[in-house]
Amino acid sequence: MSTNKKKIKTSEIAAIAGVSPATVSRVINHRELVADETVSKIAAAFESLGLKLPPFEEKSTKKGATILINFPKGTNPFYEEVIEGAMASAAAHGFDVVYNYENLNRNSFSHFVQLVENINAAGVILLVKLNEELLEQLNSIVPVVQCCEYNKKSPLPYVGIDDFDAARKATQYIIASGRNKIALLNGPLSAKYAQDRLDGFLSVMEEASLSVPSGWLINVPEINYEIAYSMVTQLLQSESRPNAFFATSDFLAAAVVNAARNLHIHVPEHIMVVGFDNILLCQMIRPMLTSVNQPKFRLGFSACEILTEIIENPDIVPHSILLPTELIVRESSTLT
Amino acid sequence: MSTNKKKIKTSEIAAIAGVSPATVSRVINHRELVADETVSKIAAAFESLGLKLPPFEEKSTKKGATILINFPKGTNPFYEEVIEGAMASAAAHGFDVVYNYENLNRNSFSHFVQLVENINAAGVILLVKLNEELLEQLNSIVPVVQCCEYNKKSPLPYVGIDDFDAARKATQYIIASGRNKIALLNGPLSAKYAQDRLDGFLSVMEEASLSVPSGWLINVPEINYEIAYSMVTQLLQSESRPNAFFATSDFLAAAVVNAARNLHIHVPEHIMVVGFDNILLCQMIRPMLTSVNQPKFRLGFSACEILTEIIENPDIVPHSILLPTELIVRESSTLT
Repeated sequence: MSTNKKKIKTSEIAAIAGVSPATVSRVINHRELVADETVSKIAAAFESLGLKLPPFEEKSTKKGATILINFPKGTNPFYEEVIEGAMASAAAHGFDVVYNYENLNRNSFSHFVQLVENINAAGVILLVKLNEELLEQLNSIVPVVQCCEYNKKSPLPYVGIDDFDAARKATQYIIASGRNKIALLNGPLSAKYAQDRLDGFLSVMEEASLSVPSGWLINVPEINYEIAYSMVTQLLQSESRPNAFFATSDFLAAAVVNAARNLHIHVPEHIMVVGFDNILLCQMIRPMLTSVNQPKFRLGFSACEILTEIIENPDIVPHSILLPTELIVRESSTLT
Repeated sequence: MSTNKKKIKTSEIAAIAGVSPATVSRVINHRELVADETVSKIAAAFESLGLKLPPFEEKSTKKGATILINFPKGTNPFYEEVIEGAMASAAAHGFDVVYNYENLNRNSFSHFVQLVENINAAGVILLVKLNEELLEQLNSIVPVVQCCEYNKKSPLPYVGIDDFDAARKATQYIIASGRNKIALLNGPLSAKYAQDRLDGFLSVMEEASLSVPSGWLINVPEINYEIAYSMVTQLLQSESRPNAFFATSDFLAAAVVNAARNLHIHVPEHIMVVGFDNILLCQMIRPMLTSVNQPKFRLGFSACEILTEIIENPDIVPHSILLPTELIVRESSTLT
């Protein structure tokens, strides 16, 4: 409105409305703090000058410049570098990032939606797999990008790795190193990564005509060192024990290494151990851990790049990305 | 107003105002979505029935049910249990918790305030030390509780440990174990914990008439394993080397253990190592690490208890808490 382009004199308006100049500027900048009748008085004062009280946009009712990243509960240093990557991308685009920890599912979903709304999130990055329906529902509120864990059936974009292929390569490496009794220490099969790595592992074992006793397929209910240590100790004390472990997380692999040592079983001589993620822990324990490297920083960075692209340009057709993995060979799998 | 207690019939109001019933309920529940003139029409319809359009409280302009916890940048698993504690307390009081990572200081402060406002935070827990002035400024916007790191000069409440005393006990233990050449591997002295632990260490060394060459007081610029590993390797290769290390973080202590091993220096025979925090890593490395335990879960839990108390009862006089520490003795300090 051209009338609004005139310079409004706060003091003049205040005099007409019979309020203080501070009240006038409060009505302009923080209308939520002012009683309705005062606003009406000031609106009338504007009109008496042939002006219009400028429309008030409540800042916090707009979607903000904050990205929410949801992580599963529990402690895994794997996520630290993912966070760093997401932060680097967000900062470049002028967004803040905050995090929450929750195992999202049908029960906790509405609570999470409430959080998204309460904090005026501009977009969400999920590191937890949701079903298609809930993903769609969330995406109708804010743009959503899946990271690391993703639901293949959903059309929403994701950034991840090829878990099936990575598990195949690790298993092929163990077999090529001369081991034939291989146990798989894995996370809960409700996770996409765990199912795909199991499938990759089993496909190679079958191709190599190697059998896998059911007791050698261990699923820990969560990525927890103590639980894994206990379960592995039990297996290592059984009559027929494996001569190699493929653990789908370095935390789990560290439990194998230390449980074996505690039973005077040598790594890698008696038991070869290969982990997954290539976190710093691999270099801290002895023997140092062979592991499948995930590009952790890039996973977070790329997910946030896609998200900010969608936020800034809602009509874009989002693309998904699979990032490469590589095997980092260290002491836990190499005989000296 | 008693008139508002009457049951308002949406359809009746809609008919009078000449709008759809949906518009009426939108004006009641989501007024921000409706044009001002439509709101006026509906207000008039209310008045024509001797009623008053109920005042509209914009949900997102109220401070929400979200607590923001600020952590320093960088990776330290120490914080994971602090987070768990805070979440347990917050959930009990009906609050959500989100996290951000930022080394708060004068430069980043206004950006942080913006974030607090953008996400409608109900309160803030800081794990980073701020100066009194900035703390006061932040506290004028939302209630603030300091956790782990705190500014002693500020009247704002904190939950922490007695760093001076904890460092004294660890140093006394090392001396009582027969070591007399003790190096201190510490974080940056800008941190309260680092300054207090240095003071505690030096006070005991002085009481025992033990000298500390300046090269044995190492401050890493951040809690980073690689940096600590490099700095310790350098010291261990020098002509006069210590026979014990007190490291003020387990991450740093792990670097000592592994740097020593790499140089074929035995822990604890040649060098005794004592860490701080008692994180899970202490049990993962070999030799297992003696460490000062911090009650991590309780630190987060208690900080959040105080914060929710202030949020729910702004007139309360908040209290600060110092929680106890204890030395957990493991292989890195005991000769077998």
